[in-house]
Amino acid sequence: MTTTLQSGHRFQHVLDARQFTRDWLEQVLFPRALELQQTAVDRLAHPLAGKRLFYLFYEPSTRTRVSFEMAATLLGATVHGIDTQDEQVRSERLEDRIRILNAYPFDFLLLRYHLEGGASRAAAVSSVPVINAGDGVGQHPTQALLDVYTLWRELGRLDRLRVALVGDLSYQRTTNSLAYMLGLFSDLKIYLVAPQLLRMREEVKQHLVRSGADIEEVRDLGAIAADLDVVYLTRAHSERLDHAQRFEGETGKYAVDEDVLAALPAVARILHPLPRGPELPPELDLDPRVACFRQAANGLYVRMALLTLLAGGD
Amino acid sequence: MTTTLQSGHRFQHVLDARQFTRDWLEQVLFPRALELQQTAVDRLAHPLAGKRLFYLFYEPSTRTRVSFEMAATLLGATVHGIDTQDEQVRSERLEDRIRILNAYPFDFLLLRYHLEGGASRAAAVSSVPVINAGDGVGQHPTQALLDVYTLWRELGRLDRLRVALVGDLSYQRTTNSLAYMLGLFSDLKIYLVAPQLLRMREEVKQHLVRSGADIEEVRDLGAIAADLDVVYLTRAHSERLDHAQRFEGETGKYAVDEDVLAALPAVARILHPLPRGPELPPELDLDPRVACFRQAANGLYVRMALLTLLAGGD
Amino acid sequence: MTTTLQSGHRFQHVLDARQFTRDWLEQVLFPRALELQQTAVDRLAHPLAGKRLFYLFYEPSTRTRVSFEMAATLLGATVHGIDTQDEQVRSERLEDRIRILNAYPFDFLLLRYHLEGGASRAAAVSSVPVINAGDGVGQHPTQALLDVYTLWRELGRLDRLRVALVGDLSYQRTTNSLAYMLGLFSDLKIYLVAPQLLRMREEVKQHLVRSGADIEEVRDLGAIAADLDVVYLTRAHSERLDHAQRFEGETGKYAVDEDVLAALPAVARILHPLPRGPELPPELDLDPRVACFRQAANGLYVRMALLTLLAGGD
Repeated sequence: MTTTLQSGHRFQHVLDARQFTRDWLEQVLFPRALELQQTAVDRLAHPLAGKRLFYLFYEPSTRTRVSFEMAATLLGATVHGIDTQDEQVRSERLEDRIRILNAYPFDFLLLRYHLEGGASRAAAVSSVPVINAGDGVGQHPTQALLDVYTLWRELGRLDRLRVALVGDLSYQRTTNSLAYMLGLFSDLKIYLVAPQLLRMREEVKQHLVRSGADIEEVRDLGAIAADLDVVYLTRAHSERLDHAQRFEGETGKYAVDEDVLAALPAVARILHPLPRGPELPPELDLDPRVACFRQAANGLYVRMALLTLLAGGD
Repeated sequence: MTTTLQSGHRFQHVLDARQFTRDWLEQVLFPRALELQQTAVDRLAHPLAGKRLFYLFYEPSTRTRVSFEMAATLLGATVHGIDTQDEQVRSERLEDRIRILNAYPFDFLLLRYHLEGGASRAAAVSSVPVINAGDGVGQHPTQALLDVYTLWRELGRLDRLRVALVGDLSYQRTTNSLAYMLGLFSDLKIYLVAPQLLRMREEVKQHLVRSGADIEEVRDLGAIAADLDVVYLTRAHSERLDHAQRFEGETGKYAVDEDVLAALPAVARILHPLPRGPELPPELDLDPRVACFRQAANGLYVRMALLTLLAGGD
Repeated sequence: MTTTLQSGHRFQHVLDARQFTRDWLEQVLFPRALELQQTAVDRLAHPLAGKRLFYLFYEPSTRTRVSFEMAATLLGATVHGIDTQDEQVRSERLEDRIRILNAYPFDFLLLRYHLEGGASRAAAVSSVPVINAGDGVGQHPTQALLDVYTLWRELGRLDRLRVALVGDLSYQRTTNSLAYMLGLFSDLKIYLVAPQLLRMREEVKQHLVRSGADIEEVRDLGAIAADLDVVYLTRAHSERLDHAQRFEGETGKYAVDEDVLAALPAVARILHPLPRGPELPPELDLDPRVACFRQAANGLYVRMALLTLLAGGD
């Protein structure tokens, strides 16, 4: 099973949500993550003892970096890295930096890059596995892994779901990767709830269509709430969404409020990659359908599982 | 004794200098710190082995962060953290971030926040002890702990002291916390040596008055130097102090110089939380009454002691 | 041999390329580095176990910091540090910061400072070895150590070399330190290939002259390429070099291209401290004479060797 991740390489990179198969998710990754999640921290084995992860972050990240750092550490690895937005550092050639890092004995390179395609460029020259921790407006595949793991845990299935992806979908690596991942499953109804000017990229939408999903673009979350299993909110890039709403007569609804909650089925779940903006008021957190903190917690175990699989464990 | 720190919680937060009792300081914290200070580093036990401290710093800190990092490390704990002033990170809801961190197996959260009240907000949602490492213009209780420990070490007593708090006292979390802490002791004479416009907050002053201290506001350190046991200098927020002195006819004296040293009793001590400005010229460092580097060194042991107490050791 | 590094101190600082002797390089440092380089990472001994390195970086660094961090870690030491360009931190007195750090049990202080002379100022007050990781436009001695180690590895000798130092040589701590180091060797021909306004400092040039090197200042790398054993490129500080070239009629050639490569002897080597600019196009990387990535890799072993020597191992 693991071989589906290897895609012909001597080792495996994690670059793109499209590289995974349904079987690998359901039969390899999820059970491994679940097993880790059900193990007390002080009873975890250290399958990564002697391994070293290096993180190279060109954009600020706190959740993803800390999540991977803890995942690696709890499994026995050591973690080093650079976290910078320094313009001088950014101006250096990414490939050069990767080649220099390859001179050190690192076993994983975790890369967040500010431009789409960064992870692929790094993988093209790296002698160790590169993990894409976000590449500009491209993808964020490990976020998508924890998102689908969360749906699997919360709802018990990934087929036959009615999902709303909500907000500014035009420059969202999170929803790009999630949409690609959802394409692996069957009988999906996917509502794209975004302003006219901030719609999902055509190529991502076409991927979903080709994979058999039933896509519908709407502009009011409230109008479809009663039909949903999943609300996947994204943080409004406030400038652009504000602009759309204020100056372009955009009157859609891209937030959860009491009315949406009232309409939403009792078994539905609200996910959010965090950090949140006004689209998910904290007053609603007590509603058990708001799953975003359980989702964040799941990230640790999904990343632990992923690292053990990349390291060749079985 | 330890229970006075617990204040009814299942565990203990360190949020406010007012939470400590005199007995706890003198009978629990100080002896513990002294014992650690008198132990060779390579003979230290590792009572925090397997524990993890996470620091979350929204303002630059170097002394406090390094001091806690070393304190935790030398006792066997591991340290992870985020050190950022990034506006995007700051704009995220503090409570959300704490809840996400609670999903990881951290045993202590060390928080420096840029706004007053940050530590209390964090403690309200945290499932592990929060340590206030400075919250805007609020408090900095662990600085105050090392300050009083230093006085105890240097002078042998905390009662019957004549103390000058010097400089811009209006927005100083350091002097706020120290003043609250001094309120625990008896027969104190406290001079507040600050410009008219940069006086200590009324609420802090009232706390000292209610605790029985004899307060006097003056504007010339030189005039009272001969009467002092302790000069506690603070770094002038130069813009504000400069403004007061240049444009408002403020002619007070808020610095130590040769004249102040000449007047100061031989047994007196000069403390400074560092970093310093012109209020303490380096040329005077050889004077044994200048205790600020011993004070900084004490911080390591006070924080080690505090961590062992928070961890429930005895 | 090691004593030549000690220069009368109880311990050793690494401050200036001029502090080393030829014998120490060839008989102590290089063999130690080579031995480490030929040892598999997982078979390295841990001679620095229980030691602690603190890095204090006032300028962004990624290569040097990571290189030292890995060197220390692979030998068993632990690493802590501060990496900041924060103006408030920079405004603090360097000597104060070092004295505070001396209160913690660190065994090495690795300092990158934004102003020339920083490392010496730190060493003047430090109670543990200070390693200069770059002090403004001053020196970068450990870069020079890895540079000459690279020449020794690549060419088998350090005497009788024809070396071109290329680019803006006026504010280059890298070429300053390398020039001082080359002064230890015999029968050198050194071309200084720089625009009129960006020539090497007079004091560095005079050092080379006094050490017996044959110096020649030229302005076209192409014209001398056929006569070279070593091309040492530096990143053009683009603003200044651009200005010189565009507005001052400067028409020199300070870059490698196909023509330079064609003229360069087959046994020559091209070094570059990285990061690079247009002076070394990536298309040329496949040429085996381009040694800059091997040079970067060597840095790890030279720094490991240096740390073991500073720690007094033999």
